[in-house]
Amino acid sequence: MADDTTPRTSPEMSWFAWGDPAKARELDPGLRDLIAQVLRARFTERPPVAEERVELPPAALTGTDLAALAAVVGEEHVVDDDAARLRHSGGKSTPDLLLRRAGRADPAPDAVLYPADHGEVQRLLEVCSARRIAVVPFGGGTSVVGGLTPSRGRFDAVVALDLRRLDRLVSLDATSMIAVLGAGVRGPHAERLLAEHGLMLGHLPQSHEYATIGGYAATRSSGQASSGYGRFEDMVVSLRAATPRGTLEAGGVPASAAGPDLRRLLIGSEGTLGVITEVGLRVRPVPETVLDEAWSFPDFATGVDALRALAQSDTRPTMARILDESETFVGAAMGGRAAQSGCQAVLGFEGSEAEVATRSAVVREVLVRAGGTPSGPEPVAHWRENRFSSPYLRDTLLSAGILAETLETAATWTDLLPLYAAVTRALTGALEGDEGGVVVMCHVSHTYPTGASLYFTVATAAGADPLARWEGAKRAASDAIVAHGGTITHHHAVGTDHRPWMAEEIGPLGVEVLRSVKAALDPEGVLNPGKLIP
Amino acid sequence: MADDTTPRTSPEMSWFAWGDPAKARELDPGLRDLIAQVLRARFTERPPVAEERVELPPAALTGTDLAALAAVVGEEHVVDDDAARLRHSGGKSTPDLLLRRAGRADPAPDAVLYPADHGEVQRLLEVCSARRIAVVPFGGGTSVVGGLTPSRGRFDAVVALDLRRLDRLVSLDATSMIAVLGAGVRGPHAERLLAEHGLMLGHLPQSHEYATIGGYAATRSSGQASSGYGRFEDMVVSLRAATPRGTLEAGGVPASAAGPDLRRLLIGSEGTLGVITEVGLRVRPVPETVLDEAWSFPDFATGVDALRALAQSDTRPTMARILDESETFVGAAMGGRAAQSGCQAVLGFEGSEAEVATRSAVVREVLVRAGGTPSGPEPVAHWRENRFSSPYLRDTLLSAGILAETLETAATWTDLLPLYAAVTRALTGALEGDEGGVVVMCHVSHTYPTGASLYFTVATAAGADPLARWEGAKRAASDAIVAHGGTITHHHAVGTDHRPWMAEEIGPLGVEVLRSVKAALDPEGVLNPGKLIP
Repeated sequence: MADDTTPRTSPEMSWFAWGDPAKARELDPGLRDLIAQVLRARFTERPPVAEERVELPPAALTGTDLAALAAVVGEEHVVDDDAARLRHSGGKSTPDLLLRRAGRADPAPDAVLYPADHGEVQRLLEVCSARRIAVVPFGGGTSVVGGLTPSRGRFDAVVALDLRRLDRLVSLDATSMIAVLGAGVRGPHAERLLAEHGLMLGHLPQSHEYATIGGYAATRSSGQASSGYGRFEDMVVSLRAATPRGTLEAGGVPASAAGPDLRRLLIGSEGTLGVITEVGLRVRPVPETVLDEAWSFPDFATGVDALRALAQSDTRPTMARILDESETFVGAAMGGRAAQSGCQAVLGFEGSEAEVATRSAVVREVLVRAGGTPSGPEPVAHWRENRFSSPYLRDTLLSAGILAETLETAATWTDLLPLYAAVTRALTGALEGDEGGVVVMCHVSHTYPTGASLYFTVATAAGADPLARWEGAKRAASDAIVAHGGTITHHHAVGTDHRPWMAEEIGPLGVEVLRSVKAALDPEGVLNPGKLIP
Repeated sequence: MADDTTPRTSPEMSWFAWGDPAKARELDPGLRDLIAQVLRARFTERPPVAEERVELPPAALTGTDLAALAAVVGEEHVVDDDAARLRHSGGKSTPDLLLRRAGRADPAPDAVLYPADHGEVQRLLEVCSARRIAVVPFGGGTSVVGGLTPSRGRFDAVVALDLRRLDRLVSLDATSMIAVLGAGVRGPHAERLLAEHGLMLGHLPQSHEYATIGGYAATRSSGQASSGYGRFEDMVVSLRAATPRGTLEAGGVPASAAGPDLRRLLIGSEGTLGVITEVGLRVRPVPETVLDEAWSFPDFATGVDALRALAQSDTRPTMARILDESETFVGAAMGGRAAQSGCQAVLGFEGSEAEVATRSAVVREVLVRAGGTPSGPEPVAHWRENRFSSPYLRDTLLSAGILAETLETAATWTDLLPLYAAVTRALTGALEGDEGGVVVMCHVSHTYPTGASLYFTVATAAGADPLARWEGAKRAASDAIVAHGGTITHHHAVGTDHRPWMAEEIGPLGVEVLRSVKAALDPEGVLNPGKLIP
């Protein structure tokens, strides 16, 4: 079946790397020197295998299966060529990339389906449920937790359900400030569709350039401006989902006491309970102005305390992040700036001219009192320029034999710094050794009145078996997170990678609740087997 | 078993009326005249029957049942005298009160249980599940939707599980601003416990004086300062619940992407999925200052538009309500003020001196631009004085042969005024006629960026059969709500009264989801039979 007839609203991501192959980043000499010194790493060329050498498992769908699927979406929207299967064989975690680069793409889906609308998704799920074909919903393909791994579960075949054709602004109520968007709309496309009406969503996670509206909802995403605009779940007014048992619609009114909020069952369900096809979202006017300011703090604890003061006050920036000493140092080196001691915070304010002026003045007072020194807008501009591009650097490093990966958590303010220390210790303990050194960096990028997130970036020599090396470090970090009051994930979601820690986080009865909902909506269990639910 | 050993942290509510019998309100002559004229009502003395004439059904628990329950909580905490059974025979809706006043208290619970802590609640549920005794969790006893009706379901016996002894501040983390409170802590008690630490919750629904923390969570409550402090569900950091299958703990971190938010399954579950025993809540410093200002608008539509402008801006009051023409007129008459044309809005600002000054100045500009005229703090002061006492007036009216009741909904801004018109029409159509006139008043008291609540107060002559008369009006209003895009309840919850409209609101699959969760947590179905789940 012809791949070229498949609609493509956005450039396809590289099969072995993040994003657009044309945007691959060079490793600049300064960073290269720094890495060599700190990680004691020998640079080795580790290019990916050629695409034609990747081995895909034989496709397992029968002719009758393919015909039944094609009867719903049309033959041209059931694609089982190697290129499409490879590009749907997983997400973009470092382990995913290591596997792809080594030419391993098993499991891969037996076919990729491109439904046109909710009705087609609904009918596909009925067909797959009846024919016992596992279904992996696929949005932007940006999962970094194994959420897209095409596991067959107890079924013979598995398909990827690519939602890119659900890419419309379904409706807009500019009085109520609600936009209904198709699940397959990517971040920048959503902002373009809304900007035509002077509106915006303001949800900007690092995956923004590729991630989709449906994916944001399915994974309980959080964007870089969460201080001002909230987490994605805070923006969701309504949801429409297809399930093997029929359509589930939840929400639609601004607030209700009509029983438990069923939107919150679909948000974070990671394709295991249903396929989200449309999301009604609170939108806002495009802000009149943006004001950026960087701040310097003598140390991470002081900076964290300053951000806590803001998060617990009535006057907050739209965006606020504080980098620990390591990340501040590396950031300066990468930006070609002088080495900087202490910790850097980057803040952004968005709104009307008057409102931003008032708000930023109050924030300035709080930060000065908390021990901060303003350092101008330039570091924030630098951050804005590079905010979506760090994943490209990871690929460059992997090609040079350096393992880089991120992980994240959140905890109360009381638990935050002990958790930070414990995770840093766990990662360092697991990775520092004969194979090379390790750099663990961290920043706080999401603050709440009751606590904050911690986002770790780790770089270390790849070693002889980088997959096993990372697996050990990840396990140690996850154990430390759970032991010190953190959540196993603040915004990356659960997928396969965090599943072992889920049971501890929600308890055996919480697991049973999820299982009971799954049994009601997906009795055959075809939806995203092996994800989320322990 | 001796009733006097049962701990009582708050005065017991009247068995046939709202609140403290000592606070019963007189009907002032001005209001009496107004009512006589508008409702064409003859005042008739309709006092409640004497308490000793109330007929309770025979208690159905066996000696073995009583012994098994007493083995958990102690004999003195299993109370089956008439006084306790009567006071747990339902909530405080007008139909509830009409029944009680007429001497009807069937169904009544066969006993009232007063557990001391989570462990005792847990063990009681196990006993009741094993012995097939229905359980109605009982907090403040303020339900106005039949949420406390002691239905036996398919069981022979039913007990009320009164949580008043779970009345402690369990823990306080002043750094993270999280207080864990027992489910039985009443509103004013919660504020007193927190005030000792300079903190507050700021959740003030009309039921505040009696309602409990557990009840707030179980019913998805919303307080009068929701513009500033959010709905109760927005304050909940963690929940602990006992279920027949064990303990369920949810939340505890400021934010997470570890699957669906299970807190949101317990919030709004109305005692059908588990008994909430502890709630971790975001708390705030007691505000430095409070600034009140009333506003006048030429008509309801203009006032609603003004509140929409505020709700969709970055600068909002802490509390904002707008009364329609009828409620403005009646309010002025009741306050002994000159009749007022147009619509009144009451606004409140809480925070630091500087912050409130800035914020209120911006709000003032928006409201003037929207067609409002400031009318000073006095009407707001009057409202604050009477904010918890309207239910007392209803009792006075019932004693005089006037039926008074409230109902509420919420909708998007686009749907709001058509919904307002439709519900007013439905209530008027159902009640205006040979038995007398009707006054339908309405206010908007909760605003969101995407829409707002509508709160209706209805007064009419009681007529020959006030229960049937109200039932017809309620049905007509509920049908109108569902037909015009409203939720069947914005903050009163579902109970028994709204259950017929739940299926339409959440759909058949939504109902199945709730049933599947119930089956997982309460396989025998002993928890609050006949409530919430259609």
